[in-house]
Amino acid sequence: MRIGMDIGGTKVEAIALDDSGAIAGHTRTATVPGADGIIETAESIVAELARQTHRDPHDFASIGIGIPGQIDRAQGLVRHAVNVGIESLPLASLLQERVGVPVTVDNDVTAAAIGAAHLMGLTGSVAYLNLGTGLAAGFVLDGRPLRGEHDTAGEIGHFAVDPLGRLCLCGQLGCLETVASGSALKRFWAGAGEHPGRTLIPAIAAGDADAQQAFDNLVRGTATCVQLLGLTLDPGTIVIGGGLRLLGDPLFGAITHQLDVWADRSPFIAQLQLSARVQRLDDDSPAAAAGAALAAIR
Amino acid sequence: MRIGMDIGGTKVEAIALDDSGAIAGHTRTATVPGADGIIETAESIVAELARQTHRDPHDFASIGIGIPGQIDRAQGLVRHAVNVGIESLPLASLLQERVGVPVTVDNDVTAAAIGAAHLMGLTGSVAYLNLGTGLAAGFVLDGRPLRGEHDTAGEIGHFAVDPLGRLCLCGQLGCLETVASGSALKRFWAGAGEHPGRTLIPAIAAGDADAQQAFDNLVRGTATCVQLLGLTLDPGTIVIGGGLRLLGDPLFGAITHQLDVWADRSPFIAQLQLSARVQRLDDDSPAAAAGAALAAIR
Repeated sequence: MRIGMDIGGTKVEAIALDDSGAIAGHTRTATVPGADGIIETAESIVAELARQTHRDPHDFASIGIGIPGQIDRAQGLVRHAVNVGIESLPLASLLQERVGVPVTVDNDVTAAAIGAAHLMGLTGSVAYLNLGTGLAAGFVLDGRPLRGEHDTAGEIGHFAVDPLGRLCLCGQLGCLETVASGSALKRFWAGAGEHPGRTLIPAIAAGDADAQQAFDNLVRGTATCVQLLGLTLDPGTIVIGGGLRLLGDPLFGAITHQLDVWADRSPFIAQLQLSARVQRLDDDSPAAAAGAALAAIR
Repeated sequence: MRIGMDIGGTKVEAIALDDSGAIAGHTRTATVPGADGIIETAESIVAELARQTHRDPHDFASIGIGIPGQIDRAQGLVRHAVNVGIESLPLASLLQERVGVPVTVDNDVTAAAIGAAHLMGLTGSVAYLNLGTGLAAGFVLDGRPLRGEHDTAGEIGHFAVDPLGRLCLCGQLGCLETVASGSALKRFWAGAGEHPGRTLIPAIAAGDADAQQAFDNLVRGTATCVQLLGLTLDPGTIVIGGGLRLLGDPLFGAITHQLDVWADRSPFIAQLQLSARVQRLDDDSPAAAAGAALAAIR
């Protein structure tokens, strides 16, 4: 039995995965930012999953953690994880000392890609596009994650497509993340509020032209990401996840429509059948937690 | 002993590779376009390499062919290879009948990626960017080619970055191939002539403003490709090959300068150290032929 944990800016989701890959335990708690908060939350989650699965905490085979920021997998180190209040934390060794179980850490989007491929039963090559606070992708090729030479594969949110575009927090102009992400909605749509993913569709229905513009940008930016992923890795499936997937059918209908409009203009693009490759991660899928558990053994 | 053949729009380059991976024979001949021309040229090349390596033609273990166009590797079929005058040709089976040696066909850019990694002794993950008549990339991860789910990985030349850009032959606007390729130089620079790769630098030196503009576009487009590849696959090395690499130091100096200018604007991009990952394929490297020979066994 293995634990997988997805530590995000607002919540920590964790599961216990049995040896057949099925989910045997599940918790969801609010994130307590900062090093102490993260470590203590993680320790209490291990205790809770032990209770749910009727064992001692140290009887788990491994704990895999998916977390945003710069990850040094070899050292089990998390750096610059701004969303969870961590500047630098040897998360793996500290948690391992407390619970007596081997701990690994991984990029949260790569973990989600691994988990999505597993939970959705996808074989071959899979790209996972995370429309969260930021914008990034993760890759799984024939069951194995592709992390890149310096663990930065999939950082397509900072591909600068538009020299006349908006200033990104990274310093470039016109990054894809400045149009297709939750942070873009918050920065560039005055009416966004704290949870733009919940307010965007109602605002459009109420006739808010800025909301419509924000939505159109999101759609075009996401469709551009799908084209980019299709032309680069040629994955069999492109899964769209992240908090903004909760925009649901209006978003996914508009993305596939945009892809089809582009296909109508180009026989070359048409034959790629990009819109048919897009799948949506289930609203309640614990993909990143499941992937973190699996990443500990891959 | 294996044969690798690179069939291009102007020439066919072929090598014989011994079991240690060293080059034991080498030929270069003009391309005779069309199905008959290609088959007969290939057959005579096999005879010539047999002569150079002192054996009978049917004593080669395999023949691998890299060729542009849509490749059906399983069927050994070449389609839409416009540059070599082929609409549809079962190249593998026809040549195999003639010479009595197993024949495989592969995408020419993927073959070049495999060959570049082998000849340059590159380990880890390698992206190969081909600045030829068209623009495309090939990938080798830990010695294995990444061809994608439908053998279209690396077709980044048709990533449409600029909605206000030029019309591409594929039907889209602003494809990377419309700024960074030999065909772009021919279409959009009036003074290009038949071999713009040879005339561009002298024209700039003579004060041709259009040549300077074409060069600047080529540099920015190629640097954009490097950023795209770096952010997507995070390869350890990005090799630039293709006919336009013969533009030499002026081109490569300008590409790395552009990458460094972008890095100066963004700490995130700076830490990727993209300019340090760029390497240039040797002017006389038979990378595609070597890769085609190796692809026959991978």
